[in-house]
Amino acid sequence: MSMLTNTPYDEITIGQTASYSKTLSEDDVTLFAAVSGDVNPVHLDAEFAATTPFKQRIAHGMWSGAIISAALAVEFPGPGTIYLGQSMSFRAPVFIGDTITIELEVTAKRDDKQFVTLACKAVNQHGKTVVKGSAEVIAPSEKVSIPKPVLPIISIG
Amino acid sequence: MSMLTNTPYDEITIGQTASYSKTLSEDDVTLFAAVSGDVNPVHLDAEFAATTPFKQRIAHGMWSGAIISAALAVEFPGPGTIYLGQSMSFRAPVFIGDTITIELEVTAKRDDKQFVTLACKAVNQHGKTVVKGSAEVIAPSEKVSIPKPVLPIISIG
Repeated sequence: MSMLTNTPYDEITIGQTASYSKTLSEDDVTLFAAVSGDVNPVHLDAEFAATTPFKQRIAHGMWSGAIISAALAVEFPGPGTIYLGQSMSFRAPVFIGDTITIELEVTAKRDDKQFVTLACKAVNQHGKTVVKGSAEVIAPSEKVSIPKPVLPIISIG
Repeated sequence: MSMLTNTPYDEITIGQTASYSKTLSEDDVTLFAAVSGDVNPVHLDAEFAATTPFKQRIAHGMWSGAIISAALAVEFPGPGTIYLGQSMSFRAPVFIGDTITIELEVTAKRDDKQFVTLACKAVNQHGKTVVKGSAEVIAPSEKVSIPKPVLPIISIG
């Protein structure tokens, strides 16, 4: 069984890094539209998107936000992390088929509250930074390792 | 046919407000887990969630980010808006069945670049602010009204 294991506050050091990757599928764009309500045709309609400066369908900007949050939740610090805040600047578009890697780096710790600040970058397969930002979390107090839930099958159309 | 209509830069005034609401379903939580990869059991497993301080499954924090982005994309300023940046602080959990209303208010305009800054609040059905933040966008230059795409049916399990 696949497990989710965290890094508790005491094991976290300034400068520590972690990464998490995801490839954007066409289905992901449809699902993000459903879950957010953002049905803008620039994301959903190839013919419409061809008339825009990007010439093709682009990901919702906040999809990159979603994978930043996933990187913090499942990768580092992982389960038990409490999300306090996130800033993001959107630098470049993400296209269907792109593989986005979230690069996290610990920039500050505050011992009395177990606050951790992390620089966050979303980088595509060409090395281009598509999103840059910063996250603030409360790191978990204790080491845990929990079974990774398996999602049900999702069908579209 | 339902249409998406925008508010171009010249029609936007400081202090102008707009809102957008969405109710979080159990399916939305599953879809957000799929699209982000955040399969943390605090979102997906009722039995596990019962052992946490929240006592029940909670939404992914970034789901509120997704509906803030949808508010900007489909409601105000709407189609043609370019997303530059977003800050968010997560104040309170969102539970399955909660109706979250995004309240937007224009706080600044910069004419030479058509930049618009908006204060963003996500408020639940009890009036509690769950997320507070600020968005930076380039507002559309021209008025457009485009057909609203209809999503395919999504089935889970």
